[in-house]
Amino acid sequence: MIQSTNTFDSSVKAVEWSNGRLRLLDQRVLPAVVRYLEFDDVNQVADAIRSMVVRGAPAIGITAAYAVVLAAMAAHKKDPHLWQEIIQPDLERLIKARPTAVNLAWAIGEMQKLFSGCDGDPEPALLARAKEIHEQDIRANRTLGDLGSEVIGKTQGVLTHCNAGALATGGYGTALGVIRSSWSKGYIKQVYVNETRPWLQGARLTTWELMQDQIPVTLITDNAASLLMKSGRVQWVVVGADRIAANGDVANKIGTCQLAITAKHHRVRFMVAAPTSTIDLHMPSGDEIPIEERPENEVLGCLENKIAPENCTAWNPAFDVTPGALIDAIVTESGVINRPDEKKIRALFTP
Amino acid sequence: MIQSTNTFDSSVKAVEWSNGRLRLLDQRVLPAVVRYLEFDDVNQVADAIRSMVVRGAPAIGITAAYAVVLAAMAAHKKDPHLWQEIIQPDLERLIKARPTAVNLAWAIGEMQKLFSGCDGDPEPALLARAKEIHEQDIRANRTLGDLGSEVIGKTQGVLTHCNAGALATGGYGTALGVIRSSWSKGYIKQVYVNETRPWLQGARLTTWELMQDQIPVTLITDNAASLLMKSGRVQWVVVGADRIAANGDVANKIGTCQLAITAKHHRVRFMVAAPTSTIDLHMPSGDEIPIEERPENEVLGCLENKIAPENCTAWNPAFDVTPGALIDAIVTESGVINRPDEKKIRALFTP
Repeated sequence: MIQSTNTFDSSVKAVEWSNGRLRLLDQRVLPAVVRYLEFDDVNQVADAIRSMVVRGAPAIGITAAYAVVLAAMAAHKKDPHLWQEIIQPDLERLIKARPTAVNLAWAIGEMQKLFSGCDGDPEPALLARAKEIHEQDIRANRTLGDLGSEVIGKTQGVLTHCNAGALATGGYGTALGVIRSSWSKGYIKQVYVNETRPWLQGARLTTWELMQDQIPVTLITDNAASLLMKSGRVQWVVVGADRIAANGDVANKIGTCQLAITAKHHRVRFMVAAPTSTIDLHMPSGDEIPIEERPENEVLGCLENKIAPENCTAWNPAFDVTPGALIDAIVTESGVINRPDEKKIRALFTP
Repeated sequence: MIQSTNTFDSSVKAVEWSNGRLRLLDQRVLPAVVRYLEFDDVNQVADAIRSMVVRGAPAIGITAAYAVVLAAMAAHKKDPHLWQEIIQPDLERLIKARPTAVNLAWAIGEMQKLFSGCDGDPEPALLARAKEIHEQDIRANRTLGDLGSEVIGKTQGVLTHCNAGALATGGYGTALGVIRSSWSKGYIKQVYVNETRPWLQGARLTTWELMQDQIPVTLITDNAASLLMKSGRVQWVVVGADRIAANGDVANKIGTCQLAITAKHHRVRFMVAAPTSTIDLHMPSGDEIPIEERPENEVLGCLENKIAPENCTAWNPAFDVTPGALIDAIVTESGVINRPDEKKIRALFTP
């Protein structure tokens, strides 16, 4: 992996291993409340992923890796010989917590590779690997952040959607990693963020995260993106990804696809920033990526308020797929792919 | 004007003249609270328009016409000879209440045409004209609703944005007039509505209005429109307009332009439904239409909840302009314009 020399740090830690337990920043209550929750039970971690205590594809992957450590510790305590069997239902529950992001399955798969080599207490080896996955993600973010900032170069402003920041990753961020690098180099003057209904990751998390680091951020509704682009305030849209198919189609937060379509119309460029762990070569195109549908009440309300009439019906798909043809650049820690296609994506994995 | 034979009625009345006063349904608190406010002071009506007690271009126009009656009644009481002079500052304040919708200025202009012919008490003549403007709007809606439904024909579903319904007009609605007509003829099976942040006209008003009339409606976030179109659930997007320029560019609720861009991408057709009073032949293109910017707090919060961090900055343009080239049909009470351009729009006004 290319090493980053960027030392600009983020103060935000969404996932941490602390005194033998997993500590998660509760993203459901930000920015009003900054609260950490601690976990020692794998099934509670699965619930936390489902209810979005932690969210963001890379952060979910890292959380799952630590959750495998918790599961193995408990199972080994129960039966030191059969722990690998005991753990299976836990891992299946964990993998099903959220279907769209591939990083969850990827991280669990990485951890499982070590199982057969574990003699005796599996904790030391598994914990070391989980920490490695975590650190690897931060390094990847720094590297792809640097690479992405050089693609953007010196310009005026960028628009981002959802939260692909330190809160969504091991730290630093993917889309916000690019934005942090661009800002620290003086390449950009202003960041705009879509509020990102229904869960308001943009309004609640991205504004908060950038304000922690004194990066100038202006919040807009998801509806205002077209006028923002037309006004000349932004030259690039930068987003993260939950899963990238082999042909370059990108599953990401609902609303990403119409942002890419709108950017193309206004000749604003469109960047996807993601570690290679988000690329799923088994998925030939975006059409095969499972799209999670979440509860209606996320759409029928906004935070605690009900916004729609009683008995109103809603549809709440959490992700959409942006065709590779609408993407100017996919930026990973292994390199930048301009105008992605299957050949260029497979080449990333060829030494 | 073409007469509609459609008798399907809406039970919703946003604006009414009642016992010498103007009665408005308070749209700020719907659907949780159904509350009517009464006005006998023109400046309070201007405040009500600014604070969106009443909203929607045609409804604002009708409200302004009745407000001119209130202003003239008060001014004539003060001085029966100088009332036309006394009234001028009131009318200027009224016209400035909201800048984007042309119907406000149009209706006030229509009322002013009668001033010179008013001998003695101006109330009877002005009130008769305000009621005529009101009834003309309802007739126009019914007619354009019928015309629009025939353009759509028998299909599956339509998507609408904001509220261009009975609540936004004299009654019946423009976009929702088309949808009411389509539904009553059995042409469509399902209506989808964008929640329409920041003011949530879709979530709060359009759902409520359609549910009053038992028309099946499903609420989505503004972000889900692209996936909805891709899924094949909708064949048309139908919206209203706040001002239509001479070249066919359409100013409408923020988010409309990216909806049109997205519809074009997915080969979903795009209809604007509006009375001819919304067409402003003095505006050569959409670039000259003034776009209202509303307070930041509408974006920083959602109903009573704050959603963004303290001291966060926001940008809140309330409208955007959709280029005529992205519009398949503009439907008015005087006829349907396919693929609008200046020649076709001017032809509407040529007898």
